[in-house]
Amino acid sequence: MTTTDEIQAAEARTPRPAGRPRSARAEKAIIDATLDLIGESVGLSELSIEAIAARAGVGKTTIYRRWSNKEDLLVDALATLKSPLPPVAGVSVREDLVAYARVFLRDACDARNRCVMNIAMNEAERHPRLVERIRQATIEPRRAAITALLRRGVTTGELRAGLDVPIAMANLVGTVMWYIRTEGADECAASSDLAERIVDHLLVGLGP
Amino acid sequence: MTTTDEIQAAEARTPRPAGRPRSARAEKAIIDATLDLIGESVGLSELSIEAIAARAGVGKTTIYRRWSNKEDLLVDALATLKSPLPPVAGVSVREDLVAYARVFLRDACDARNRCVMNIAMNEAERHPRLVERIRQATIEPRRAAITALLRRGVTTGELRAGLDVPIAMANLVGTVMWYIRTEGADECAASSDLAERIVDHLLVGLGP
Repeated sequence: MTTTDEIQAAEARTPRPAGRPRSARAEKAIIDATLDLIGESVGLSELSIEAIAARAGVGKTTIYRRWSNKEDLLVDALATLKSPLPPVAGVSVREDLVAYARVFLRDACDARNRCVMNIAMNEAERHPRLVERIRQATIEPRRAAITALLRRGVTTGELRAGLDVPIAMANLVGTVMWYIRTEGADECAASSDLAERIVDHLLVGLGP
Repeated sequence: MTTTDEIQAAEARTPRPAGRPRSARAEKAIIDATLDLIGESVGLSELSIEAIAARAGVGKTTIYRRWSNKEDLLVDALATLKSPLPPVAGVSVREDLVAYARVFLRDACDARNRCVMNIAMNEAERHPRLVERIRQATIEPRRAAITALLRRGVTTGELRAGLDVPIAMANLVGTVMWYIRTEGADECAASSDLAERIVDHLLVGLGP
């Protein structure tokens, strides 16, 4: 039995939530086709449901069964580029920060991910409502999780009182992104301890 | 006398270094035309000397007098997007870090700058030799300056011994970039003390 057969058999057994497409496989093909076309610099304005359907090998109605318009599909497709944050152990703030940093690192190390996200955000500067929706879908869940973690650290005394939370968040995410962009992919190996190095560095600061 | 006349008069009086174009005004028009076309998402492969000449209102020979090929022009044009770092006072590492952070902040606050740079870098992923030249022209001078400053701080004891210099650099630049991208333009006012806040935050770290 192939993996595809297994998926289809599993789908046949499992009742689907309302609003899901006929098949998870079709949904994945549609999302992939959307990201591929963005990655090929097809402008968001020129990106058409017809082109996405053709690339995904599905009919337009399959797309419209799941997404009522192109913008909704675009937001969902881009949201898949961000790995979900893991549930945190909650024992030590340092360990939980490292767990988050590992996820940011994994996403930053995926060149297609970076490229598609950048193109979409650049394009989106011309479409402010769309950029706001993309931010809500991709950045806000992470921002909320990191904020909660940093606040927990201040409460437990593991982080210093009066911490500037938005700047501390920018420290964590910005350092990961910038390091991978400029120092490159050597740190993308699974064995890299870059997440630990970054968190420990931020915890002690630059000062003597 | 108009400003343009003044420039031309000044040029007539001043001997030009070899390799400069007939007029600084033409050079600026050529650079602006190049950046405009990139900002309009004209792909680097499709970007032509003809189109740049037409947009700049100069002849192709004026361009070729200064740049021997499109790639050279592209590298020079993108390099103008990065403000030069100021000479540092050298009295306090904190003050010098703040001076640099202000420059990064000013560049990050310029939406066209960000947009054009991102488009060029995304496009350049398909042209590795070009991306390397762009990095050399735009990122390397800053990296060298920041590295020298951080090392000075370690030597003087203003920064802690054993500082991880590449990560400390990513802290500084990444935090500025990420903060402006996600928290937005409110901090772009001249009165903003964001540069100070970021540097002071990094100096003391997150820990208690």
